[in-house]
Amino acid sequence: MTEFELIAKYFARSTPSALIGNGDDAAVVAPREGHAFVITTDTLIESRHYLPTLDPMKLGRRLAHVNLSDLAAMGATPRFATLSLTLPHIDETWVDRFAQGLWSALDAHSVELIGGNTTRGHTSLSMTAIGEVSVVSGRAMALTRAGARAGDELWVSGSMGDAGWALYCMTGVIAAEATRQQIDAYEMPTARIRLGQALQNLATSCIDVSDGLLSEANHLAQASDVAFEIDFSQIPSTLKPMLTDPKLSAQATHCLLATGDAYELLFTVPRQRHEEVATLLRTHELAGDCIGRAVPVSPEDSVSRVRVLDASGHAMGAPLSGWDHFA
Amino acid sequence: MTEFELIAKYFARSTPSALIGNGDDAAVVAPREGHAFVITTDTLIESRHYLPTLDPMKLGRRLAHVNLSDLAAMGATPRFATLSLTLPHIDETWVDRFAQGLWSALDAHSVELIGGNTTRGHTSLSMTAIGEVSVVSGRAMALTRAGARAGDELWVSGSMGDAGWALYCMTGVIAAEATRQQIDAYEMPTARIRLGQALQNLATSCIDVSDGLLSEANHLAQASDVAFEIDFSQIPSTLKPMLTDPKLSAQATHCLLATGDAYELLFTVPRQRHEEVATLLRTHELAGDCIGRAVPVSPEDSVSRVRVLDASGHAMGAPLSGWDHFA
Repeated sequence: MTEFELIAKYFARSTPSALIGNGDDAAVVAPREGHAFVITTDTLIESRHYLPTLDPMKLGRRLAHVNLSDLAAMGATPRFATLSLTLPHIDETWVDRFAQGLWSALDAHSVELIGGNTTRGHTSLSMTAIGEVSVVSGRAMALTRAGARAGDELWVSGSMGDAGWALYCMTGVIAAEATRQQIDAYEMPTARIRLGQALQNLATSCIDVSDGLLSEANHLAQASDVAFEIDFSQIPSTLKPMLTDPKLSAQATHCLLATGDAYELLFTVPRQRHEEVATLLRTHELAGDCIGRAVPVSPEDSVSRVRVLDASGHAMGAPLSGWDHFA
Repeated sequence: MTEFELIAKYFARSTPSALIGNGDDAAVVAPREGHAFVITTDTLIESRHYLPTLDPMKLGRRLAHVNLSDLAAMGATPRFATLSLTLPHIDETWVDRFAQGLWSALDAHSVELIGGNTTRGHTSLSMTAIGEVSVVSGRAMALTRAGARAGDELWVSGSMGDAGWALYCMTGVIAAEATRQQIDAYEMPTARIRLGQALQNLATSCIDVSDGLLSEANHLAQASDVAFEIDFSQIPSTLKPMLTDPKLSAQATHCLLATGDAYELLFTVPRQRHEEVATLLRTHELAGDCIGRAVPVSPEDSVSRVRVLDASGHAMGAPLSGWDHFA
């Protein structure tokens, strides 16, 4: 099977929304009138971002959702994507399953694959996702990291730490058994596209939790020039039972605060809109909770602007450590 | 140096044309009124697309030009880019030179880097380039591969085979010495952006020669539903002196017809516009020539739609072999 046959068979579907679709040197696309494009790029490397044993169908799905998650964090509507596929050789069974997973995710959001690149090398999967937001008076109606104000509530959707816990259990770093739900959280994250769109008129800032909760909260804090107090006991997580197990408590705490791959949304809203957010999460059948509040920056916030408080309101002194790819 | 410091120091320049620039989950950009975006993705893998000894400054330049070349082939004006950088570790001397080369190319065309991704792994460099073409009555004013008509002339800019020859000489496949000009053609290709833009109102079809001349001509032929006759003696190349050397003739012929990395433009124009094209190439100080013509498809064109004719007008029977990454 040649490169061109591979593209034709698995990836060259029709692109009705493109002015010029796939199959030329480049594709030509335009946002709908009164809209602008939201553009993001992500790469998955074997053994770094996923285990080599991962079902390629889940991998295809994961590549799409990891990218779509950034669009969700902007409150955007997904429209187009390009795919750069680097593989050591063409294993058609693998590609077939990978493509199935990819398309299931793209189709669910009517995303058209408008181009890409295939080459030989160590497995590396890169996607550029293109979404859309409306533009009003020259201003993009997108959720950004900046905009949180002191007094705002801090919310997170879903459950924190599940994916990191599952990965540590599967690789033997933690001597415990992950549940199916936790493993699915790692292998099959779901970009919160509809939640992000619904938050457009509600949230003052938003980010997706691709790295750790504390790290992402710190990004929001820096961009918005506020600090955050997080109530540890309020953080939604399936790991809560482990917190009272002396053998697993420290590891569960670490996963909950500092491991990534959750792809949930972390966002701030004005306090008076608390009930609207609670209703919104219920409507979307999502877990999630108000986990803290934005406060003014104080002099001791030089390194981290996020303080985690225990049940009695004392700072936990938890390390701020998200994922740095080169640390 | 952390991932975030690396991005801040080398890649996070201002993006005045973006509605929301780099530094958030995604960037927000819109084409100017009456325009659409042209989008393309390319990946460079170490040892596959460039020698590990290549000066990182040239590599950065090359990554940009390889991507911009696809925009050139569409007649587009470059506007934005995203970068996905996978490196085994942060070698700051390397990154510094890489970034210098990248920016020199992007700055030359006022391209703004609006986002990207950094991760650890085998060196792999992926870029998505975003250009712009005007839209008239809902139709994108882009050069495509389709549009050549029987009777049109086939032209190519620059010199064919230089880059492939240089690579073969540097890796010992061919026992000869490449000239500085040939090595530069391989290491420092130049996307023909201004030529592509000027061809907008002149060419009936266009493609960039990233793989081999014959392979690219075949793509044009398939998309346009024509065949091509190419006069071998008319193909511009610095390899011409080697064609009369019995020891090097076969290899030079192969390089000229079938090796890639030229990043020149191959395009068709109506016969009566011959002089305009000749003038255009002179204006842009580019080599290049009319190398053949489009003819109707005949029954014997089943595999390849490109016939190469020798000086006496006989078919040379040269193999149609561009680069297939998985062949």
